[in-house]
Amino acid sequence: MEPENLYKVRHSLSHLMAGAVLSFYPDTKIATGPAIDNGFYYDFEFSAPISDKDLGKIEQKMRELLKKWSTFEKKEITIAEAEKMFADNPYKLELISDLKKEGAVPTIYTSGPSSSEDRAGAFTDLCAGPHVSTTKEIPSAGFKLERIAGAYWRGDEKNKMLTRIYGLAFESKEALMAYELQQEEARKRDHRKIGKELKLFTISDLVGAGLPLLQPNGMIIREAIEDYLWELNKNKGCQRVWTPHITKKGLYETSGHAAKFGEELFRVKGGEEEFFMKPMNCPHHMQIFCDNQFSYRDMPVRYFEPATVYRYEKAGQLSGLARVRAITQDDGHLFCRVSQISEEVSTIVSIIKKFYTTMNMLNGYWVRLSVRGDDRSKYLGSDEVWEKAEKALEDAAKENELNYKRVEGEAAFYGPKLDFMFKDAIGREWQLATIQCDFNLPERFDLNFTNEKGEKERPVVIHRAISGSLERFMGVMIEHYAGNFPVWLSPTQVKIIPVRENHNDYAKKISDELKGLNIRVDLDDSDEGMGKKIRAGKVNKVPYMLVIGDKEIESGELSLEYRSNTAEPGKKEMINLENLKAKLQKEISERL
Amino acid sequence: MEPENLYKVRHSLSHLMAGAVLSFYPDTKIATGPAIDNGFYYDFEFSAPISDKDLGKIEQKMRELLKKWSTFEKKEITIAEAEKMFADNPYKLELISDLKKEGAVPTIYTSGPSSSEDRAGAFTDLCAGPHVSTTKEIPSAGFKLERIAGAYWRGDEKNKMLTRIYGLAFESKEALMAYELQQEEARKRDHRKIGKELKLFTISDLVGAGLPLLQPNGMIIREAIEDYLWELNKNKGCQRVWTPHITKKGLYETSGHAAKFGEELFRVKGGEEEFFMKPMNCPHHMQIFCDNQFSYRDMPVRYFEPATVYRYEKAGQLSGLARVRAITQDDGHLFCRVSQISEEVSTIVSIIKKFYTTMNMLNGYWVRLSVRGDDRSKYLGSDEVWEKAEKALEDAAKENELNYKRVEGEAAFYGPKLDFMFKDAIGREWQLATIQCDFNLPERFDLNFTNEKGEKERPVVIHRAISGSLERFMGVMIEHYAGNFPVWLSPTQVKIIPVRENHNDYAKKISDELKGLNIRVDLDDSDEGMGKKIRAGKVNKVPYMLVIGDKEIESGELSLEYRSNTAEPGKKEMINLENLKAKLQKEISERL
Repeated sequence: MEPENLYKVRHSLSHLMAGAVLSFYPDTKIATGPAIDNGFYYDFEFSAPISDKDLGKIEQKMRELLKKWSTFEKKEITIAEAEKMFADNPYKLELISDLKKEGAVPTIYTSGPSSSEDRAGAFTDLCAGPHVSTTKEIPSAGFKLERIAGAYWRGDEKNKMLTRIYGLAFESKEALMAYELQQEEARKRDHRKIGKELKLFTISDLVGAGLPLLQPNGMIIREAIEDYLWELNKNKGCQRVWTPHITKKGLYETSGHAAKFGEELFRVKGGEEEFFMKPMNCPHHMQIFCDNQFSYRDMPVRYFEPATVYRYEKAGQLSGLARVRAITQDDGHLFCRVSQISEEVSTIVSIIKKFYTTMNMLNGYWVRLSVRGDDRSKYLGSDEVWEKAEKALEDAAKENELNYKRVEGEAAFYGPKLDFMFKDAIGREWQLATIQCDFNLPERFDLNFTNEKGEKERPVVIHRAISGSLERFMGVMIEHYAGNFPVWLSPTQVKIIPVRENHNDYAKKISDELKGLNIRVDLDDSDEGMGKKIRAGKVNKVPYMLVIGDKEIESGELSLEYRSNTAEPGKKEMINLENLKAKLQKEISERL
Repeated sequence: MEPENLYKVRHSLSHLMAGAVLSFYPDTKIATGPAIDNGFYYDFEFSAPISDKDLGKIEQKMRELLKKWSTFEKKEITIAEAEKMFADNPYKLELISDLKKEGAVPTIYTSGPSSSEDRAGAFTDLCAGPHVSTTKEIPSAGFKLERIAGAYWRGDEKNKMLTRIYGLAFESKEALMAYELQQEEARKRDHRKIGKELKLFTISDLVGAGLPLLQPNGMIIREAIEDYLWELNKNKGCQRVWTPHITKKGLYETSGHAAKFGEELFRVKGGEEEFFMKPMNCPHHMQIFCDNQFSYRDMPVRYFEPATVYRYEKAGQLSGLARVRAITQDDGHLFCRVSQISEEVSTIVSIIKKFYTTMNMLNGYWVRLSVRGDDRSKYLGSDEVWEKAEKALEDAAKENELNYKRVEGEAAFYGPKLDFMFKDAIGREWQLATIQCDFNLPERFDLNFTNEKGEKERPVVIHRAISGSLERFMGVMIEHYAGNFPVWLSPTQVKIIPVRENHNDYAKKISDELKGLNIRVDLDDSDEGMGKKIRAGKVNKVPYMLVIGDKEIESGELSLEYRSNTAEPGKKEMINLENLKAKLQKEISERL
């Protein structure tokens, strides 16, 4: 099913649900009922509370209505007609009043038995649509009611709390079941839960929501990812820079970000001076560029900085590492000539492909190439430059055999871009990497270099992120691997378990040998029993476990157990120390 | 001369200068005249402007007065007497009014010819002292007047601008000359000047004063220092953590920093929520500790984080990297048992000694051991814990053969500490590393771990910094090395200069070979002449230069020139590529 059609199905189901609800509770006031990513919801003001137990009968009634109903008929009406029609519904009246202010024409959708039949069971809603043209398009086995929740009218906590009923809806029973299975799996691997179990990060009430602190285990993962990103970028000629986290207002007035970010900006005062927390790193990198007199021989100039920006989001929207107020971007800005865009983009694409291959996420990825729409007045920069840039991006996509879709009209006003969508281990899609051409900031900051003719030439800026927000990326990785990180990312790489106390010395010797190679070892020489030590290793999701007892000391070979985050889960083998070292070093250095 | 005596000499010279000034300009109003680090100053309100040209005669008069004057006599007077005595001097009247508010007794110092002689030439000042007992203590050749500057009365720009005359004063002519030589050398190696020349950092008007941005060259140095610090700390069991830059007010209310930092705090608002920029990392690290249930087997716990804190300083006090508003601390917090303090301190001392040996700063260092004074009520924590901690610090100082001085009464209220003073290449002293015991934060944050008996036990916190502020440390290093960084810190390590265009390919081959070993190479294959290329290499203070021409290509050996930042400045030799690689790799990896 095409996304547009699934959207119509979901939206139509919300009407169906409202119809079913009204058949049981006729004095219910209906508010709004849109389609959402996994189905639909409708907000109601019930005269008496309902509970999850009531969902069954409502769902059953929906299936009955689905057989009876046939069409969704659209009709334009006047404001006066609308006000009369919904006179006893304050929510609809508020919506109608908004339409009136906007000068918009209200539309209603009526659904029910086909027009030739009795219209008694019909349901009419104030609604902009769109809907399916016939209920036959709605797969009866593809939906179910999910849960009840409270929701303020229009999302504003000053308003009345309504009752929201959520429904899931997909194109088939199989798609619905797959989604439910995915959700169940997602709950098991929730990064907030695993983050606690593996001691990766801390949310502190005293520090504040959306401001996670990384525990040593989390920092090991963060550092491994950052180091890898820096290695990939450094190898392609990037230079590292550093910028502070606050700035005078003027910088973001010049860049235009002050207006763009508005209420999302953290405002800072020192004495009587005013500053912003930086919401983006770009303007700072422009300033670093500006303080040089570059010639064409120096181009491209490439800056890299994993830098933390701050954006104020409402407390209710914050969640673990997924949605935070302190966002560390793996930020990079390239300054190049128009003729160099193609090669630069190709290089970035190669970095992205390598990085996501390592992360085991390249399967099923796709790329959105966003280009200009027909209304050329919306975009900054000359036709010539745009055409070259769009072509450069598309050429790079082709050369690198990217699975891409060209989407007209989705470009930013400042330039075309490539956005990369990757699927995690349970099939969820994440927008992560991005490459964006920018003709705007070079103008605003009057960037230039001296060309072959001794003239000033304006460079193009390319923004690019490989992982995107490192916090969000870590959250995605925790869920992608369900905490079973590959050995190079694992906080503890090898757990060594001496069988009895008299094996501790030998175990210590092995531990020191591995630590000497920068391998992260946990030697568990506590008084606990072996079973308990092994269980603890499993709980901590350590990829390799080494048990050391009489047999191992006598034979000089070590008992190695492979856990699920290795290439051969469950394998057990005897291995000598030199081979173990070589094996681990290879897996770590090659990020296998 | 003891520091206290030199202080008295300097303070007495400011009176001498005021006496000399009044002899030329009797209607001058005198304000205040303290001793400072390198001499003294006095602030005057002149009735007509004076200039640097007038300093000579004032200085000459001072030497005359020095012969005539003999003593500095102190006398307590009443507020009323003081008001009468200084009735025509608004500055002194303001000071007297302050004394009155404080309930303090005014004192005056009268200096001039010995009491048996005519008192006509005497000079009397409202002054708390102390002064030399006789002018014979003042070395006549050890002082000179330095310069004139404007200064607001009491440092407040809302007040009247006065004229400040600065004088230099030391214990002997030799000491004065040595200081002047040092100052001249310091001007040559000013880190702001070298920072521009070598493109290390940028101060941007749009970003703001005290918020330097690191250029790629600066970031190479910063990263090399940070990596080294992390290596040293990691090898001693430190774990890296990460904390955000803003926090809710509550954290610093719990820690007590909110009150301590007051006006220095940057206040942040997101929506209607209030935050602070963090002025210290300690409270965040306490929160990371708190989110664990540690046992005695886990102790010590050691966190390391090079983290940026923000403190609001007045714009006028900011200077290059030396005094900034964004301060990146190489911060570390250790949590240990009282019995573990000694070993932990010893480990930190060994890190500090190793680090400053590498930095070539260990010569002439000394350490201040600050312990409690007699008034025990000023300090937090039991006598027993204090005695153990002071002994642990002193034992570590002895074991590590530190050149230390024990200073009673200089401890912080929360614990004793060791502060390390290092001398740079021109003999200036910098307080850099510090190790501080803290019995306060563990109380405030209710830190604990489970001991052998299953009881809660309170750990001690040890704050420690090796480099201190990385910005300031980089400033110190730029001046210490005068920009001639040792090869491991040099932004460019080798400059390769092909003699003519037909040598470019061979030069490129050599360049790629070295780059493959992560050596930072600048291949200058531009069209410039060889002389110009070599001069550019010298200006950029590149430690090694390789010239490649016919001779080199034929012989297969490279012409290597050693610059002043190498072990053998000026040396030239022919060296083959393998030996060059080995040589550079050794110098870089061993940080020679």
